[in-house]
Amino acid sequence: MKRGTAVKTRDRILKAALGLFNERGEAHVSLAQIAGRLGISEGNLWYHFRAKHDLVLALFAELEERIERTLSREPASAGADLAYFGDYARQSFRDIWEYRFLYRHRFDPDAESELAQRIADLTERAHRRTERILADMVARRLLAATPQEISELAANAWIISRYWFDYLQERHGLARITEAELQAGVKQLFALYRPYLTEAARGQIAAAHETAPRKKAARG
Amino acid sequence: MKRGTAVKTRDRILKAALGLFNERGEAHVSLAQIAGRLGISEGNLWYHFRAKHDLVLALFAELEERIERTLSREPASAGADLAYFGDYARQSFRDIWEYRFLYRHRFDPDAESELAQRIADLTERAHRRTERILADMVARRLLAATPQEISELAANAWIISRYWFDYLQERHGLARITEAELQAGVKQLFALYRPYLTEAARGQIAAAHETAPRKKAARG
Repeated sequence: MKRGTAVKTRDRILKAALGLFNERGEAHVSLAQIAGRLGISEGNLWYHFRAKHDLVLALFAELEERIERTLSREPASAGADLAYFGDYARQSFRDIWEYRFLYRHRFDPDAESELAQRIADLTERAHRRTERILADMVARRLLAATPQEISELAANAWIISRYWFDYLQERHGLARITEAELQAGVKQLFALYRPYLTEAARGQIAAAHETAPRKKAARG
Repeated sequence: MKRGTAVKTRDRILKAALGLFNERGEAHVSLAQIAGRLGISEGNLWYHFRAKHDLVLALFAELEERIERTLSREPASAGADLAYFGDYARQSFRDIWEYRFLYRHRFDPDAESELAQRIADLTERAHRRTERILADMVARRLLAATPQEISELAANAWIISRYWFDYLQERHGLARITEAELQAGVKQLFALYRPYLTEAARGQIAAAHETAPRKKAARG
């Protein structure tokens, strides 16, 4: 097998596994079903991943990288434009949505101690990143918050976004989550930050609401 | 078996089951272990509960009643005393802590549709109750919030308290949750409400902080 093909097959397997895990829950998906969806042999799949747990670990590594990328990105502008900071929230909810099977899973810290440790590390790093973003917003006079408030906000923001889809599924019974629910999550997170916005930041929101309908009309 | 004894045995079984489910996770506890802890026969246990699922349902009914009681209680004073409202948060975290195995469990909405529906109903009722409490605080001039803000606060408060112990376990790896973590949850929830407190409410907090050390000194 050529190296290029192997890499491509590996990526295709991960993508198919992610899709099936998200749709059905990882407990209800077998390696045979993943091979079947791709039209490859189980032997070929086994060449890349020996067990379902290896797939879970590889997808978790993708998620780690994704969250790191989302939260370490510099805002597109060095100025005091609130809109650039909204992207962190929107992209975070997208990351969670794309890897939602990992968020549904409750890891057993005893049986999966390595993964539990990586989740703990990821959670800590994400808190530090979020605190840095919020401190940046304070420096740009978009947010008024003390270091203590920033730390509390980062924790509450993590809880609200990380458990958002769990919450929706419990509150509304059956699972039927769409783009609209993702947007509702972003809104719910913004509600957390709203009291801390400066007058300047509130002014930007008001101005955006005024111009938005006009933009829509121009497009239509 | 006399009726009084049967009722007492049923209560003892529920208490033992709750303790074991909380300690080990319900998946790792058998009916035999529950009978063993109580020193009763499996036949006696079976007379009350035929399957583990029946125990889970009975404990869930207890939790429903508990949450209803906590959130429907009238504040101890008709006045504008913030301290009376702190009890809702403290008692809510205690309720969650006492029935924590139910909060750790992720129900499969397809396999356990009746329970999923009851969880959805419970979540809705708790939201309405919390909104009423917050509206009451607005009426007493302790909180300044619009109906829209009250609805957002109730949802965020539910998410933070309902997932608080999950969050701690993920963030710190292994499970070792004590009274201190429960208090940290109350604090984290208060952080959510803080920006909405009126000047009068903030004044009460400042006054309480001033008198607290003196009280402590008097006690010691």
